[in-house]
Amino acid sequence: MNTTATTLKMIFDRWYALLKNFDASLNALTDEQLQHEIAPGKNRGIYLLGHMIAVHDDMLVLLGLGDKLYPELNEPFIKSPDKTVNDIPSAAALRACWSKQNEILKQKFDSLQPEEWFQKHTAVSAEDFAKEPHRNKLNIIITRTSHLAYHHGQFVLIK
Amino acid sequence: MNTTATTLKMIFDRWYALLKNFDASLNALTDEQLQHEIAPGKNRGIYLLGHMIAVHDDMLVLLGLGDKLYPELNEPFIKSPDKTVNDIPSAAALRACWSKQNEILKQKFDSLQPEEWFQKHTAVSAEDFAKEPHRNKLNIIITRTSHLAYHHGQFVLIK
Repeated sequence: MNTTATTLKMIFDRWYALLKNFDASLNALTDEQLQHEIAPGKNRGIYLLGHMIAVHDDMLVLLGLGDKLYPELNEPFIKSPDKTVNDIPSAAALRACWSKQNEILKQKFDSLQPEEWFQKHTAVSAEDFAKEPHRNKLNIIITRTSHLAYHHGQFVLIK
Repeated sequence: MNTTATTLKMIFDRWYALLKNFDASLNALTDEQLQHEIAPGKNRGIYLLGHMIAVHDDMLVLLGLGDKLYPELNEPFIKSPDKTVNDIPSAAALRACWSKQNEILKQKFDSLQPEEWFQKHTAVSAEDFAKEPHRNKLNIIITRTSHLAYHHGQFVLIK
């Protein structure tokens, strides 16, 4: 295995392991429990679930892999703090979005050739990318992996 | 910049960014606040701080960079759950360990050549590594980065 293949395996192993962990935590919670806060006065489980979906949805755009699947989640789960938007999707609806999204993201990620992951993402200009080649597609996976880990650490606190 | 250099920059940028974030959260808490739980009935801040130091200390061994700095932290902060060991170091002592450790880890990490990060870590045999080249030193950084993110997500909940 060459360095690029090894690198991709390490990065994607982490991404998929953390998705699986989050999924296991989600499946262990009832819809009612998702209404609970992670800690007193903090975000609710349902907000974190919606937030993960909305942030991962944006990866499609950043990676040049198509439009968002659920653009309507941006407003309530990224732009707005928890408990400020009354009309959010149900836990059941968000669970369905999450599952479908994970399938589609995997299909789309698998469609890229190894070297494409080292090409620029869509939020960086060609000029900046020439100077900063680390602002590539793979870095989107790396940063979203630590974002996922951060919120999973919170999600597991729900009782 | 070649692929290896780009990869190392992405991985270490994330590691150091998350250490900095954790450090900022730590500096914003008083010693008294570190005695608080992240959520009712869950780990205390001081336990998470000790846990981070103990886990990062083990990286030295896994990376073949020397002995642990604080082997005495393994028992109370890795082997034992929170609130089961009475005699743990003070918050002030742990803050000092954390700062010193971050300096030393950086010095040691900087001493490795880029290609050394793709060599095997000490917990994998040469035979297994031949089949699984992703079990390298860089993967130790990658997995500890998501571990750090996970607990930082909890650490920020302390009031």
